[in-house]
This record gives sequence, C-alpha cells and structure tokens, in this order.
Amino acid sequence: MFQFRIGSKCRETRARVGEIRTGRGSVETPVFMPVGTKATVKAMAPFELQEMGAGIILANTYHLYLRPGHEVIREAGGLHRFMGWPGLILTDSGGFQVFSLSTLRDVSDEGVTFRSHLDGSAHLMTPELSVEVQEALGSDIAMCFDECAPYPCTVEGSKEAVRRTLLWARRCQYAHRSPGQALFGIVQGSIFEDQRIDCARELVSMGFPGYAVGGLSVGEPHGEMYRVLDAVVPELPEDKPRYLMGVGYPPNLVEGVARGIDLFDCVLPTRNGRNGTLLTRRGRMNIKNLEYERDFRPIDPECGCYACRNFTRAYIRHLFRSGEILASRLCTWHNLHYLLELMGYIREAIRSGTFADLRKRFHEDYQDGSDRT
Amino acid sequence: MFQFRIGSKCRETRARVGEIRTGRGSVETPVFMPVGTKATVKAMAPFELQEMGAGIILANTYHLYLRPGHEVIREAGGLHRFMGWPGLILTDSGGFQVFSLSTLRDVSDEGVTFRSHLDGSAHLMTPELSVEVQEALGSDIAMCFDECAPYPCTVEGSKEAVRRTLLWARRCQYAHRSPGQALFGIVQGSIFEDQRIDCARELVSMGFPGYAVGGLSVGEPHGEMYRVLDAVVPELPEDKPRYLMGVGYPPNLVEGVARGIDLFDCVLPTRNGRNGTLLTRRGRMNIKNLEYERDFRPIDPECGCYACRNFTRAYIRHLFRSGEILASRLCTWHNLHYLLELMGYIREAIRSGTFADLRKRFHEDYQDGSDRT
Repeated sequence: MFQFRIGSKCRETRARVGEIRTGRGSVETPVFMPVGTKATVKAMAPFELQEMGAGIILANTYHLYLRPGHEVIREAGGLHRFMGWPGLILTDSGGFQVFSLSTLRDVSDEGVTFRSHLDGSAHLMTPELSVEVQEALGSDIAMCFDECAPYPCTVEGSKEAVRRTLLWARRCQYAHRSPGQALFGIVQGSIFEDQRIDCARELVSMGFPGYAVGGLSVGEPHGEMYRVLDAVVPELPEDKPRYLMGVGYPPNLVEGVARGIDLFDCVLPTRNGRNGTLLTRRGRMNIKNLEYERDFRPIDPECGCYACRNFTRAYIRHLFRSGEILASRLCTWHNLHYLLELMGYIREAIRSGTFADLRKRFHEDYQDGSDRT
Repeated sequence: MFQFRIGSKCRETRARVGEIRTGRGSVETPVFMPVGTKATVKAMAPFELQEMGAGIILANTYHLYLRPGHEVIREAGGLHRFMGWPGLILTDSGGFQVFSLSTLRDVSDEGVTFRSHLDGSAHLMTPELSVEVQEALGSDIAMCFDECAPYPCTVEGSKEAVRRTLLWARRCQYAHRSPGQALFGIVQGSIFEDQRIDCARELVSMGFPGYAVGGLSVGEPHGEMYRVLDAVVPELPEDKPRYLMGVGYPPNLVEGVARGIDLFDCVLPTRNGRNGTLLTRRGRMNIKNLEYERDFRPIDPECGCYACRNFTRAYIRHLFRSGEILASRLCTWHNLHYLLELMGYIREAIRSGTFADLRKRFHEDYQDGSDRT
C-alpha cells in the first residue's frame, strides 16, 4: 500500500501539506529525511530520531550493497529490522554514489561498471540489480537507477544522461515486484529546462507513485535550482509526492516547499553536526570558536532539543576540542531537531494559511548567505 | 555531608554492602564508577548512564586542569553542572596522569613539574593545586595528590614514593576546605606488604573519610594484587569506604569485593567498547570477528541493555566495520551495563548471604584468563 493525500494548500505558492501512508505507517509532508547512509544516521540511535519526530529516513543502496551486502540484510529480515528503525525508509538507487564515489566506472546502456571505494572490487550495477537490492532491503520507497550528470555539463552530456535515465526507469519499473514498496521516477536534465520538462513528461506517461528531481544541489547557484523547480514541478502530477534529492540547506527547504516539493534529504545536518557547525534560526554557528569558551548559554536558548535543554556552548566546545563522541552526538541531535522542527513549522504555516509570512520571516532571520551546504 | 553506613556483611569474606550519602545524593556500595576522564563518559550521554543505574562517575583532575581549565568549570557552576551529570562525582588527584601521560617531569617534595601532553606547556602540580582544582570542580569525593610508583619498582623507589605520598597527603588535608567534599587518602607501597601496612597506618592516623588503594592494576599479576589487598584492607577502618583504583576487569571486581573493597573505577568497559570488545558472563567477545557476520542474535540474549534489546551481533559488527559512531555507543552501553549489573548482583548476593556462591559461579562461567585489560 502506498497512498498520498493532500490536506492543505497554500494560496500564494505551490506549497502543500500532505500525508504519505504505507503499510508500515505514515508521515506528513513536506518532510525532511535524515540520511542513514550505511544503515545508521551517523551518531544517532533510532530512539533519538523518534524522539525528535523523524518519521522517514534515507539509506543508500550503493553502500549497503557493498557492505554488509544486501543478502545479509535480507536474511536479517530487511533493513528496518537490521537497523532497528520502526519508521519509514526511502532507499536511493545507488546511481548518485556510483557516479560520485566509485572509480574506473564505465557507463553503457546496460549499466555502470565500477570499482568499490572500499576494496577496489569490480561490480556492474544495472537498473535490475538496483531494484533487486532495494527489494532485499525492503525499503518503503525505492528509487529508479538513474544517471546524474555533473554540474556544469554540456547540453549533449545532459541529454545523454536523460535518455539513459528514461531507459533505465523503464527497466526498473519492469523489474520491480514488491507490492509493499513504491518505486519513484527521477527527473534529470541538469539546468536545461526543456530537457527537464521532456524528462518529466516521459516519466509521468510511465506512471510512478512519486517523482524525484535529481541532479540539483550539485554545485549550481541557488537561483538555477529554483528556476529548474519552477519549470519541472508544474509537469508533475498534483496528486503524487515530489522529492527534491540532496537538499537540506535551510533556505533551500523553504524555497523548495514554496515550489511544491514534499520530500527532502541531505547529509548537511549530520555532517555539519560532526564538524561543529550548528544550524540555528539566525544562520550557522561554529561551536569550536574561542568566543564560546565561557559561554554558558545553550546553543539556541529557544530550542527544545536534548542538547539545548542540558548543555552549554562552553561544554560542547570543550567536547569538540577534546575529540569526544558526545560532541558529534549533541550537535547532530541539535541540527536534525532544528530541521525537523522547521519542517513542522512549515506544515503548520501551510495549514493555517501563513506560509508566505513564515517564508518572509525565515529569510529575514537567516543571515547566512555564505553557507552553501 | 559525607556518610558511610554498612548494611550487610558477608560471613565468609570481607565483602560488605554499604551506602555513601552526600549532600547531593547517595550510592550503594560495592559500586563501579564509569570513567569520565574529560567531563564525559566516552560515547555516553548522562541520561544513558542514569538509565543503566550509574550513581557515581570518575573525572580526571589532570585532564580538566589542562582543558578546559578548572576556572572555566568553576564559572560554569562546577563539574556536575558543566557536564550535566546529576549523580555523584569522584575526581582523582592528577597524580597518576602526571606520572603516566606527561613528559619531562621533575619530581620533588614540592610537587611535579611536567609538560602538558596537549601543547607541551610547563606546569607545576602540587598537592595544594590539586586540591584547589578539585575544589573548583566541586566533586563529591576528592583524592589526595600521590606518587604512584611504576611496576616493577625497587624497594627503595617504592619507599620514596610512600614517603612523598604521606607528605603530600598531609598537605592536601591541610589545604582542603570544601565542607561538602570528602577527601580520601591513598595507600601506596607497590607490592611490598610492609610498606603498604606502614602507609595505611600513617594515613589512618591522619583520619580520612575514605581510603584508596593506589598503585595496583599497573601490570602486576592478579595474585600480587590480591596479596596486597589481603595485607592492606585489615589496616583500614571498617567504617570507612575503601576504593581500589583503576580496577575494572570483572574477575578483579569480584575478588576485590571479597577482600573488602567498596569502590572501583576503570576505563576497561568504555575503552573495550570503543574497540569492539564486549564483556559477557562467559568472558569477552570481539564483535568484529567474521563469525558474527550473519549472527542475528543479540550480544547476550540474557542481557537487558539497550544494545541487546534492539540490535544484533551482525548489525553491530557492520557498524564497526563501517566506522560508525553508533558502534562505539552500543558496545560502551553494553559493557557499562554489564559491569553495573554485575555489581548489583554482588550487592544482592552479599545481602542475601550468597556472595560466596556468586563468587564461585562467576569464576566458573568467566572463561577468559587472557583478558588482562
């Protein structure tokens, strides 16, 4: 079972509140999905993610295929049981990682031959194998294996990636069997609006239960991302969820929602957390700075996360300087809490007809133009 | 306020159950103190320590003096507030670390001149400074600054360390002012029973609210440790708590309790945890081993810790191989839970008159002679 219902719509923008329902449970959208690349959201335990209100997380097919191997996870009873996560899981197809992490890749219409970044072993990832792995993982939402063109790329380079993405989408759809798992299509086309529109129309004609916009947040200016979204989203069916892949920079979340996006994922809150960079309403904050040495206030006095309720900036700075694991835990906790809470405020604002206000106030408060991931 | 009351005694051994009461709260003994060297028990958050029943932890004067500096912690309102720990804290004096971690030390009766292992800066640690730092930290139990002789050492070398330890104990006692903090004396004397007895008698004549046995678990055979305890403990007052420093290897805990010890601390459960070595009733277990690749049982099916209730050996092995923080968290959690639970069983057995049985069964089950920390 996979259902998507829209509850409220914004009158000034394309923002909407919806609900994804699956056999395992449901989540309200727009939603941010914490990234659990290798079957764990880095530094967090499942009960903590639940406590901060995460309903769906993302895991990576590429990484789990290589280690521990999808057969191990199948034997464990699927990824939910393997990692002890009771919420929903979306798996990406491995396409992005095959192109960005592995070496010596050889791309053909058949698939991608690559060498593992772990041990150099050679593998051929095909649309069919990607679907098989995702079915073994047992995620609630699977993604089509796609080719993500780099940024910048030529018109022809992008066109070829779109052609292959569509070919592979058909093969993924054909190979996909799990009735309890929804398979989403992915729109490619770099920053070329005509290619994006063609790709979207083609995918829509194939009929997927949800659509992702891939190949953005790969280095292009924010304005380009917004321009592409403005062109693509109107091509996607109103009644299906839309997922903007790899986006988690707070201003992009707000602008993505305004453009009709329902799902987001990004390593930003977790990676930044392990790095001592904290997300706040007013922009980012580097907790390692000397100015916090004797600052006995919480990270954000208005935040209700575990870190802010119990610890000071001075203490967290000390933990970072001492290389303590708790430093990564507390900052990851705060960052994820911040993004999940922001998404909650956004849903609330859409419901109450005040999203345009929230959007305006958000950008006034967020003084952080330089933070681009 | 600092009180120690004995509740039950074993008839066959020197084991006893007691209670330490302070203005901040109380703990039952015998007790194991998780080590929070730098104001955090590595990989754990305070709420987790509470959940597993830890009532008292240890922190290190040497490390906190160097970073973040005791004045920062004083300003924060003391170590309990700084680290968000509501239970009791024992601070060691820094003596052991000055001798084991720092370089270029110069020991005289005045104190120890050493270079920081962090930045090479020069410092003079004296008994008075150690007390001042511990008072700034605001621990519930402070330790006298002592000289810990290495193992092995000569009769003369140990004698000199005992002489200085006693001299410094007097100065610590004289310098100590905090009424809410108990200052414990430390017995040195290496493996020489006569020196141990002399040192203990001298300290007892000075009158401390508790006594520690230092300079053991530094490489000597277990039999030597037990021989020294058999000689020292009878010299210590029955109505004061006795603390065996640096001991956490499970068989040593059981044997220490049998010899009349009330408090223990060791990095073993936390360090082993971060390393993938797990403590169980049957001995240790290296979760990284290939044999656990598809082992979907908990670490210990009879254990009730968070890790054993929610995750499998296969998953934890995967986390270790992937370098995930959650691996360290889960294994530390399990190890601390194991030791704290063991101490609970020991207290229960002493109360019910079955400690001798527990001791026998423990050694029968624990097949792990090679695990010496």
